Amino acid sequence: MGGNSFGTLFKITTWGESHGEALGVVIDGCPPRIDLSNEDIQKELDRRRPGQGKGSSPRKERDRVEILSGIFEGKTTGTPISLLIRNEDVDSSPYEEWREVFKPGQADFTYQAKYGIRDYRGGGRASARETVGRVAAGAVAKTILKKENIDIVGYTVELGGIQAEKLDFEEIGRNALRCPDRNAAIAMEKKIEEVKLQGDSLGGIVEVLVRGCPPGLGGPVFDKLEADLAKALMSIGTVRGVEVGTGFGVARMLGSQCNDPIGPKGFKKNDAGGILGGISNGAEIILRVAVKPIPSISIEQRTVDQAMRPVSLKIKGRHDVSAIPRINPVCEAMVAIALVDHLLRQKSMQSFFP
Amino acid sequence: MGGNSFGTLFKITTWGESHGEALGVVIDGCPPRIDLSNEDIQKELDRRRPGQGKGSSPRKERDRVEILSGIFEGKTTGTPISLLIRNEDVDSSPYEEWREVFKPGQADFTYQAKYGIRDYRGGGRASARETVGRVAAGAVAKTILKKENIDIVGYTVELGGIQAEKLDFEEIGRNALRCPDRNAAIAMEKKIEEVKLQGDSLGGIVEVLVRGCPPGLGGPVFDKLEADLAKALMSIGTVRGVEVGTGFGVARMLGSQCNDPIGPKGFKKNDAGGILGGISNGAEIILRVAVKPIPSISIEQRTVDQAMRPVSLKIKGRHDVSAIPRINPVCEAMVAIALVDHLLRQKSMQSFFP
Amino acid sequence: MGGNSFGTLFKITTWGESHGEALGVVIDGCPPRIDLSNEDIQKELDRRRPGQGKGSSPRKERDRVEILSGIFEGKTTGTPISLLIRNEDVDSSPYEEWREVFKPGQADFTYQAKYGIRDYRGGGRASARETVGRVAAGAVAKTILKKENIDIVGYTVELGGIQAEKLDFEEIGRNALRCPDRNAAIAMEKKIEEVKLQGDSLGGIVEVLVRGCPPGLGGPVFDKLEADLAKALMSIGTVRGVEVGTGFGVARMLGSQCNDPIGPKGFKKNDAGGILGGISNGAEIILRVAVKPIPSISIEQRTVDQAMRPVSLKIKGRHDVSAIPRINPVCEAMVAIALVDHLLRQKSMQSFFP
Amino acid sequence: MGGNSFGTLFKITTWGESHGEALGVVIDGCPPRIDLSNEDIQKELDRRRPGQGKGSSPRKERDRVEILSGIFEGKTTGTPISLLIRNEDVDSSPYEEWREVFKPGQADFTYQAKYGIRDYRGGGRASARETVGRVAAGAVAKTILKKENIDIVGYTVELGGIQAEKLDFEEIGRNALRCPDRNAAIAMEKKIEEVKLQGDSLGGIVEVLVRGCPPGLGGPVFDKLEADLAKALMSIGTVRGVEVGTGFGVARMLGSQCNDPIGPKGFKKNDAGGILGGISNGAEIILRVAVKPIPSISIEQRTVDQAMRPVSLKIKGRHDVSAIPRINPVCEAMVAIALVDHLLRQKSMQSFFP
Repeated sequence: MGGNSFGTLFKITTWGESHGEALGVVIDGCPPRIDLSNEDIQKELDRRRPGQGKGSSPRKERDRVEILSGIFEGKTTGTPISLLIRNEDVDSSPYEEWREVFKPGQADFTYQAKYGIRDYRGGGRASARETVGRVAAGAVAKTILKKENIDIVGYTVELGGIQAEKLDFEEIGRNALRCPDRNAAIAMEKKIEEVKLQGDSLGGIVEVLVRGCPPGLGGPVFDKLEADLAKALMSIGTVRGVEVGTGFGVARMLGSQCNDPIGPKGFKKNDAGGILGGISNGAEIILRVAVKPIPSISIEQRTVDQAMRPVSLKIKGRHDVSAIPRINPVCEAMVAIALVDHLLRQKSMQSFFP
Repeated sequence: MGGNSFGTLFKITTWGESHGEALGVVIDGCPPRIDLSNEDIQKELDRRRPGQGKGSSPRKERDRVEILSGIFEGKTTGTPISLLIRNEDVDSSPYEEWREVFKPGQADFTYQAKYGIRDYRGGGRASARETVGRVAAGAVAKTILKKENIDIVGYTVELGGIQAEKLDFEEIGRNALRCPDRNAAIAMEKKIEEVKLQGDSLGGIVEVLVRGCPPGLGGPVFDKLEADLAKALMSIGTVRGVEVGTGFGVARMLGSQCNDPIGPKGFKKNDAGGILGGISNGAEIILRVAVKPIPSISIEQRTVDQAMRPVSLKIKGRHDVSAIPRINPVCEAMVAIALVDHLLRQKSMQSFFP
Repeated sequence: MGGNSFGTLFKITTWGESHGEALGVVIDGCPPRIDLSNEDIQKELDRRRPGQGKGSSPRKERDRVEILSGIFEGKTTGTPISLLIRNEDVDSSPYEEWREVFKPGQADFTYQAKYGIRDYRGGGRASARETVGRVAAGAVAKTILKKENIDIVGYTVELGGIQAEKLDFEEIGRNALRCPDRNAAIAMEKKIEEVKLQGDSLGGIVEVLVRGCPPGLGGPVFDKLEADLAKALMSIGTVRGVEVGTGFGVARMLGSQCNDPIGPKGFKKNDAGGILGGISNGAEIILRVAVKPIPSISIEQRTVDQAMRPVSLKIKGRHDVSAIPRINPVCEAMVAIALVDHLLRQKSMQSFFP
Repeated sequence: MGGNSFGTLFKITTWGESHGEALGVVIDGCPPRIDLSNEDIQKELDRRRPGQGKGSSPRKERDRVEILSGIFEGKTTGTPISLLIRNEDVDSSPYEEWREVFKPGQADFTYQAKYGIRDYRGGGRASARETVGRVAAGAVAKTILKKENIDIVGYTVELGGIQAEKLDFEEIGRNALRCPDRNAAIAMEKKIEEVKLQGDSLGGIVEVLVRGCPPGLGGPVFDKLEADLAKALMSIGTVRGVEVGTGFGVARMLGSQCNDPIGPKGFKKNDAGGILGGISNGAEIILRVAVKPIPSISIEQRTVDQAMRPVSLKIKGRHDVSAIPRINPVCEAMVAIALVDHLLRQKSMQSFFP
């Protein structure tokens, strides 16, 4: 009930603090006999490391995953897969200064309110570093989905007010921001440089696309596929909104515009984003999340300490300007995990069909 | 795993089809010794009935709730509360004609894909009528929240492209659309009349506000308060997007704008919408949902039947033009249920504090 | 968390008090397209009615089940099945006298301690009448198991100190006590008559046998098949012990006696009772439960009232002398429900096998 | 759904194979601000190590626990506690010979049936070594219970047919078998020596006593306290039966004997074993489990290999003669974990009382 597990048939439990010994995840319910190697997981972890994709950035051997259980002779056994990532070279000294301070936009205040205690070092459990376990588990989920020819890709459609105006899948892997529009990517990079000099940060929007999902996934009432996907995505620290298909755009549509006509070969358009009545309809699943600017900024901020006395805060150190693009593989991971769970649920149900 | 339950400590299970015998809900985990009457529940059900609030509309005695268990001498006993609402005067004959047809924007296609069978009458389990159980359970949740001085109100901030421009709480109860802006409400009503004549339908946006929520509710990782609220709201049939606080607006903000400064008396603004790091911060909780136009329209639509043969469909009968405002109490109900669950979880945790 | 649900993929939620309006159960996760009629359920309910099987006992139309949802044109649809049984002709007046008294061996004291309130009429939620919902859900589970050629039978192997000495399956249905040994059944009936005259009650042992269960059901750690079956059975009001296979007999065995040798055609004996390492092995599953004497006796008892003042209690009215044989179908129902749940879990896992 | 988690509010997830890299447990839902040291956990792990308690046995530094998360400055923080125990000096070579053989009384056959793959080395996930994670989590649970003055002790009441005839609590810690009767302990030790020479193994009975448990713990229907305790205990590998209070003894009692009379100072006897109607009554909770002889014996056994061809098996290596007394702390751990879960549930419910 601490809320550190996600999923039902395919269930992950993450643990760890940013400046503790290690972080990790236990995956329970992975089907047996699936080929799974250290590299399958490591490559996803590498995608969420700082500075990845920036061309010449020197590779640092960080976030090395260790598989502790559940794999035998290169295959899953059906028993829990425990994955461990050690925290290395953590330096908690910068945090000592603000030990008693509630940083704006961060979880200090609420953790103190909830628990009466908190690990103030680097955000503790509230750190974005917590997502390491999600991405590791997501790599396992993606391996399962690949067997079923289901593919998930997350890309940046807006950053700092600049919108991608085309969707060129080839381009996504070519730029550091994972933006499907080359010109937009260049403008976004420029915006990031500007804002970095000001010590400020930027928000944006990430779109996640699922291709190859069969119809029939999802429960029709509370466990609607979009409801579980919304929870999956909204559980990521900086996400403040989730939409499926046309999303908030439906507010200004007529029913005759919004309904997707069906022809002998399937849906003729996809405003529904691949989900009808809580159940996948075989079309591409389209999701978008709003990502808030990273709250750690070096601009001076007004706040209070634990005794509610006013404090003027200037956070030192290097921080990302935006959670994008490091959040993209996290979004993919959460979507993958939720889909595997529903896939297993659906396979169980189908097994009774004549 | 059929996904018809929601919640953990305060858990509801709904059942029933629109043209079956009855619908209902079982509430498990309601604390004992709480005063609860039939009227507490009936008044919420009345708010979601068709035609309610339209001034002179003649009261029809529909959706009468029957309390079957869990109440003794006017108080909850801690055992499951079973609530029953009979379906009355259901006429399934209009549905016979389209029995084999997949109606666009509706769940016919996906139910068939998932289950290989469906109750085609009036949408069956996928009908908006399914929300009757949610609203009944929400009434119980609201009764609990009232004891803790927590109050929830849902209102219409956009409909058919018309936006509310002010937030006058007094006004919400005065117009049928539960819009907090009188002028906007009048324009919305006019828009509805127009679209009704065309046989089309309208989407909109509902905002839900929670006042009086104490800090400390929510789990910090997967069960973030906003994640559970997003699931709760996205599980409502016509909802296609959910946001908290500034929501998708964060995509264009700087960190220095988005962070809410804290002063000795608390948060100085509320872009976070009352939730930080997945945990309530004591400020008002603000949520918004995108509501799609009702898919049942009388305009001719192209679709297919179960053999995937083309069909031209014209749905007869009277349907609402918009899920708004009947969806508003459903949104309130889901938020109330999720909050009670987190309240119980938090009380359990706090009980160990010195 | 009120603990009124059982199962994960096949989940039942029961509700209702013995002297309330009604009792019932919601079954969530039943596979679709299974033929299910009112009679399938009614015949199981009839087996747990008072006085059933006693030859000439006049049929009273009690415990009539009403199917409220989840069935369409005689088949399950995959949506929740809601079953309702009204309480008829309940007379609560005999309970008024002991309204404030904690009856020995009953739940008055503990309900008051837990909830601070209780429905004292006829045991309320603690009544054996609560099992009506279990038996109704068990009938659905049995229907599913029958499709898989799995069969469950519960019979009386000890009552009032008299043990069945042979296992004649034909005999089980022939005597009212569901005892597989005709002579023992006669002696048990005689014992019951004696004890009835004294106003006392009797305990016994019921064995439940599962035939046709395939190997592979069960989770190997906490959700061992025998662990879930033990919970299922120990959750029945009067059960005080559960054992599998040789059960407590293993305490006096050597490993060389206890291990079941395996031959080319399978296990050569079945001390394991069909479960090894928490997983079914394809042999018959054998379970036994210890059933305590019914606590409602007309012999005078010493107890206290809610103010802890001494009271001398004599319970009037007609009560069964033993929970056996009415508990037998309840045991079968719980085993059936747990098995269907594990069957669905296993089918989901197997679906990934090459 | 892999079934490697136990509990709801206080939830543990164990992982690891006997000859893999490591084993461990993640504890989610531990209340914050509780003092917890490495030593609190290590001392319980030491109790389940081989050869412990045998007086002069040289201490080997095995099963060292590492706390990876959830503790800050010596206190729990409310975030998941991840505990790791490395497997050291594992030698899998003895298992190579029987790699394809289904060992009688063990899980080889059923794991193969369920998963189609298994880690044959040392029992893999089915090894008794899996209980390391349970005992580590149990140490945390015991720390919480100690704050509430609840104490759990497990002791040997029967082994190899020899029964303890007195219950001297002082004696339990004095002999290696944790038997509360000194003379019985001596006879048991002698019996063990005899059977060891024969290459055989022994079963027995362990009793677990809970002192200081307040009334009110437990859910009244499926989550009866004894039902959850039965599941907790039956989930331990060698347990084949569980009983509460008088247990199977109730089968031969009259109601007038079995009911515990209540006086102004509480229950006058305790045949109920501290639980009435599924809820603790404030008396001592008494549980007993039947422990089967360890299936790994060096006596020759008939079995088959994976192709179902006959094989004659002689297991080499040193194995314990009985799971007792190493199973005793495992039983205590499982009872502790289940009790903390119900304690948290009850505290949540009570928080609403006036």
